[in-house]
Amino acid sequence: MTSPRLDAQMAFLTEAEKLRTILRATPIGDGSRQENSGEHSWHIALYALILAEHAPEGVSIDRVIRMLLIHDIVEIDAGDVPIYLQSADTQSDTEAAELEAAKRIFGLLPDDQAADMLALWQEFEAAESPDAVFAKSLDRFQPPNLNLVNGGGSWKTYNVTFDELDRRVGKPVRRGAPTLWNWIAPKIRAVLR
Amino acid sequence: MTSPRLDAQMAFLTEAEKLRTILRATPIGDGSRQENSGEHSWHIALYALILAEHAPEGVSIDRVIRMLLIHDIVEIDAGDVPIYLQSADTQSDTEAAELEAAKRIFGLLPDDQAADMLALWQEFEAAESPDAVFAKSLDRFQPPNLNLVNGGGSWKTYNVTFDELDRRVGKPVRRGAPTLWNWIAPKIRAVLR
Repeated sequence: MTSPRLDAQMAFLTEAEKLRTILRATPIGDGSRQENSGEHSWHIALYALILAEHAPEGVSIDRVIRMLLIHDIVEIDAGDVPIYLQSADTQSDTEAAELEAAKRIFGLLPDDQAADMLALWQEFEAAESPDAVFAKSLDRFQPPNLNLVNGGGSWKTYNVTFDELDRRVGKPVRRGAPTLWNWIAPKIRAVLR
Repeated sequence: MTSPRLDAQMAFLTEAEKLRTILRATPIGDGSRQENSGEHSWHIALYALILAEHAPEGVSIDRVIRMLLIHDIVEIDAGDVPIYLQSADTQSDTEAAELEAAKRIFGLLPDDQAADMLALWQEFEAAESPDAVFAKSLDRFQPPNLNLVNGGGSWKTYNVTFDELDRRVGKPVRRGAPTLWNWIAPKIRAVLR
């Protein structure tokens, strides 16, 4: 059976699979290796499912899950920039590379789906809608939870202080999910200067 | 802030993370290593999102995605049994081990969520509801797509013939998503005896 539409969908799904070859700064829980962006996407989608009750009123958890499933796909072309290496100097280059990547990769899909997925990714990146703000907060909340069990992980790699973590991680987590920040902050304070 | 409910949710999410240490029979697309069950769960949730239009009428894609996010968590305790090693002789032992695992792992959650997640997992396993039938078909449809790009993968490992694949994989894919089976069957036939 020939189906150009299904061919395009499968070309996207086969390309997307490469996301698991992109390594992140945070080690997995047992500390044995770095987390990859594919399994990270699964883990935070599961965060969304389980922590739904901590989202602000009006957030659609199913939309948040959809957003989290695709939020990192641009890294196949653009790579992952560890949060502790992000700076105002390089931000516009990173954003341009990620937009290029989004257009190429989502562009493998049939036109209607390509437009839908690009819009969903741009909504996540803009971090303005309630769904995107909550999704971003989960994306920032998961790595410290890993570092608390893996022995310090990326905090050690980048000599992170509590103040720096508060600025880069605490702020977005508080914005979308203050309950989650209040829960984890004392645990981080106990191990970071 | 103390919150026994959030403590329980986070204990579950931190335990669930171990799913990515469980290796499956199928190699990832570039053939460099075996796929793990965490990233597999992400990839097939993405399949559900993108292939939604190929689901039978009445299927809720968001429920399918939720199901796929949790469908393999039992493997943390019970391991993954490659489909080409599954047999009627060992099936009841596997099922018993998986039910034990589901009770322990979902049991880390607050009681209401533990019951919800156990029910969702049991619905998937029973493969009777339209959502579960479609979810199962995606779980079976993804590995052949990987083997088509990774150079034969688990088909080589287990000397799989087309007839055996048709019985173990074709049947459940056809049941939940005949369009997807019709699309992939000739591609598999071209490489398997």
